[in-house]
Amino acid sequence: MSGAAADAAMSPGPPDDVSTDGLYEVTEAATRAARAAPVLAALGRAGRSRLLAAMADALWADRERLAATADEETALGVPVLLAEVARTADQLRLFGRVLDEGSYLGVAVDTRTADGVGFPPVRRWLVPLGPVAVFGASNFPFAYGVAGGDTASALAAGCPVVAKEHPSHPRTCALVLATLRRAATGAGAPADVVTMVSGFQAGTDLVRSPQLTAVGFTGSVGGGRALFDLCAARPSPIPFYGELGSVNPAVVLRGAARDRPADLARVLADSVLTRGGQVCTKAGLLFLPEGGDGDAVLAALSDRVDAAARPVLLNSSIRAAYVAGTAARAALPGVRTLTRHRPGAGSRPDPVPPVLLTTDATTLRDDPGSILTEECFGPCALVVRYRDTEDLTAALTTLAPSLVCALHADDSDADTARALLPLLAAGAGRVVWNDATCGLRIGWATQHGGGYPASTDSGTTSVGAAAIGRWLRPVAYQGIPAGFLPDELRTGDGGDGTGAPTVPYRLDGVPLPRSERKNP
Amino acid sequence: MSGAAADAAMSPGPPDDVSTDGLYEVTEAATRAARAAPVLAALGRAGRSRLLAAMADALWADRERLAATADEETALGVPVLLAEVARTADQLRLFGRVLDEGSYLGVAVDTRTADGVGFPPVRRWLVPLGPVAVFGASNFPFAYGVAGGDTASALAAGCPVVAKEHPSHPRTCALVLATLRRAATGAGAPADVVTMVSGFQAGTDLVRSPQLTAVGFTGSVGGGRALFDLCAARPSPIPFYGELGSVNPAVVLRGAARDRPADLARVLADSVLTRGGQVCTKAGLLFLPEGGDGDAVLAALSDRVDAAARPVLLNSSIRAAYVAGTAARAALPGVRTLTRHRPGAGSRPDPVPPVLLTTDATTLRDDPGSILTEECFGPCALVVRYRDTEDLTAALTTLAPSLVCALHADDSDADTARALLPLLAAGAGRVVWNDATCGLRIGWATQHGGGYPASTDSGTTSVGAAAIGRWLRPVAYQGIPAGFLPDELRTGDGGDGTGAPTVPYRLDGVPLPRSERKNP
Repeated sequence: MSGAAADAAMSPGPPDDVSTDGLYEVTEAATRAARAAPVLAALGRAGRSRLLAAMADALWADRERLAATADEETALGVPVLLAEVARTADQLRLFGRVLDEGSYLGVAVDTRTADGVGFPPVRRWLVPLGPVAVFGASNFPFAYGVAGGDTASALAAGCPVVAKEHPSHPRTCALVLATLRRAATGAGAPADVVTMVSGFQAGTDLVRSPQLTAVGFTGSVGGGRALFDLCAARPSPIPFYGELGSVNPAVVLRGAARDRPADLARVLADSVLTRGGQVCTKAGLLFLPEGGDGDAVLAALSDRVDAAARPVLLNSSIRAAYVAGTAARAALPGVRTLTRHRPGAGSRPDPVPPVLLTTDATTLRDDPGSILTEECFGPCALVVRYRDTEDLTAALTTLAPSLVCALHADDSDADTARALLPLLAAGAGRVVWNDATCGLRIGWATQHGGGYPASTDSGTTSVGAAAIGRWLRPVAYQGIPAGFLPDELRTGDGGDGTGAPTVPYRLDGVPLPRSERKNP
Repeated sequence: MSGAAADAAMSPGPPDDVSTDGLYEVTEAATRAARAAPVLAALGRAGRSRLLAAMADALWADRERLAATADEETALGVPVLLAEVARTADQLRLFGRVLDEGSYLGVAVDTRTADGVGFPPVRRWLVPLGPVAVFGASNFPFAYGVAGGDTASALAAGCPVVAKEHPSHPRTCALVLATLRRAATGAGAPADVVTMVSGFQAGTDLVRSPQLTAVGFTGSVGGGRALFDLCAARPSPIPFYGELGSVNPAVVLRGAARDRPADLARVLADSVLTRGGQVCTKAGLLFLPEGGDGDAVLAALSDRVDAAARPVLLNSSIRAAYVAGTAARAALPGVRTLTRHRPGAGSRPDPVPPVLLTTDATTLRDDPGSILTEECFGPCALVVRYRDTEDLTAALTTLAPSLVCALHADDSDADTARALLPLLAAGAGRVVWNDATCGLRIGWATQHGGGYPASTDSGTTSVGAAAIGRWLRPVAYQGIPAGFLPDELRTGDGGDGTGAPTVPYRLDGVPLPRSERKNP
């Protein structure tokens, strides 16, 4: 999402007018995080739930100043940013509920063989990895920032966070950091459960730091892959959870196009223009049927895009990449520009016009390595016209995996929809029916991640309750008396009388609810 | 576990006297596996459960020939190998139960916000990754072989397996492959749900093959790291689940040493000598207190080790490494040899004597990079004498993470045990109380994996029910009508009347048992 170039181009270092508390050199930050790790773990689920609630409350209390500062740095607009602070606080509270509920620990206890022969209990659960690094994104200074989803899930898991300051909004980063650290102290946790480092070199040093145990990243394919490679090349490799680029397809089937062109134009415009098209869930490829039905959708969509507000993009690198990227695509053979205005050279804060391009499905199929199938960050999309289902399928098959895809279908499209769903789900982490690709719902069933390059690890999510799992690893205790174990693992094992776990668990393969013996 | 050198030294290729059905060139094997993938997925949980049962039955029916062939190649002994066939069949059946039960899919359905505002359901579950590669170990030709844990969990997940033939027991591999493929066909699945490739180059080509989506590996640090690096360097990286080397510590506390020296000597000898010490769970470092209590344990242990049978090791490379490895360690300053016999040069099938060495905790602490803290495969161990808890803790802190560690403690050791458990659990995937490190119990609570180099990915297990998770990735369906979804995801979403999922699931955050509406 952010340009790696931006990182290099902008001068790192703390801004003059905000606190530098919590901003450290890499070695110092890593050492402090390692020292905070056992304390954070020892807070237990209840203590960490209180910590997250305190952080959520503190962000909400500071929302006016946070949103105003972020607006100065990102131009996303105060109302949008206030809503993002609310979302960010809600994310922290969601992980509080995840902790209170306790299933995430995956507690399993085996006491006998499949044939019923007893043995000293084996008890498995998940424990925190240790200090982790979090690289936030340019486009969501709160929700994917210092207090974003990766931080919320890591702290919930019991892992202190060393955040990398984003060069595109350093003052917002510093303010959020100060807010989180103040809340931590107030909740009885060390302030160093969240620290920060600044600058390009600090970022690369951080992922190589021996104390670090995992990395969460949201950003560009180039920057993300470089950090992924560093993590894999460590003497002891650590997991790198990167959300990189994604060209999300939205597919309109013929029946839907015929029945509701105006509605589709609205949903597709939302999918392209939300936050100036600067979201990882932007629909970058819009598949419309050839012929009159598709033409009607396209005409309504072009009008909407032409009439849309012109956004100020997040930073100069992103603006330059948008101008160059739309021009390069428009110049390709077989590609036409549908919208009236082209982005001029200019410089930020000059706004840019949204751009809609179009081509045929055969263009994608015949040149699968084309830049047309790469992400172009900003308010632009490529409309791909297809002749029939075969033509559509052939084009979709050439695409790299994505975070999300959308299928717009009516009753008359049922057979085609049924045939296409497995193909769409094969690459994407989320498949949306008759709705915009943007507008991720954050809850227990959320999936935000996909095949490479959408994610470097398609087995996890960066958003939603399941994200806590990326910061945990399993440990089994074999025959250890219950008195030596935490509450969550205590089972009555032949006479110690300590009852059942305080979390949902699995006993000899059978899932059981938690014991209500005591509050967790 | 196996020497990478062995791979290079031995001539690959199918043995003359067994079937080559299912043995393919890499491209052919990958293509066939990719073709089998949607068929295997479409079998559903019930169909794959039947497939695994058929494979278990077929292995058991062939057990005499399988064990005899493996004994010719490994010298592990027919009784040991018959028991291993039984374990291997049991593993396949365990995953059948995992499929029948269905929790592994992690089904979650969100229908409303935290404030109770409804929205089109978001349904999340896990889907198979696609074709995977499995590299088996030298030391468990069945349980970690072509039909081993990785194969069982991958097939259960819905992922076809391309196995790499082990050069140390190619005839056993071919026999197992033929048995599995026959069973698959009999169970209505394509034979190509399991295929095999042969030779060192084929192994490296396999992990680079575009169709492959993940790799399971059990073997040496050198070979495993090389394949890990290849997976990370792919244009689209794939997960590599490697179980590499592990020097598993067994710690005897003072009270236990005083109270039951003979019992400890027996358990420690089992931890060192099981299967000729050729297991990944061998205790390689035995921590005993200084003084008379520890001396008594050591005397009884030395006697047992000296009196133990001399095993024939698995192959010539492992034998050569054992002879050289024990000699190199014995020659280090501060190290004494406790057992009477030293392994001579000789060559396989000459048996080798077990070896017990000893040193002080300060030796480890003062030279943390020493080969004394590296795995030496075979029937040998290093006894480390410690003065007090501080001395013990300092030595333990220098060790790399391990698969397993054991703590031997009596009531009088409770305070020390309580202080040591977090340290032991910090690196190891399994902590054993007053028992041998070998003898992994396979069930729902099993954890077999640890920090690097024990595992390349400490977030998963290679054995036990949870192993199925390594071959799956999440997908969320947003607003898709239940009629388009598999049974496991169907919920009554406002009038379609299709009831509740047939697996345990989570509805708006609340865990619920599966609907008994129909059998899965």
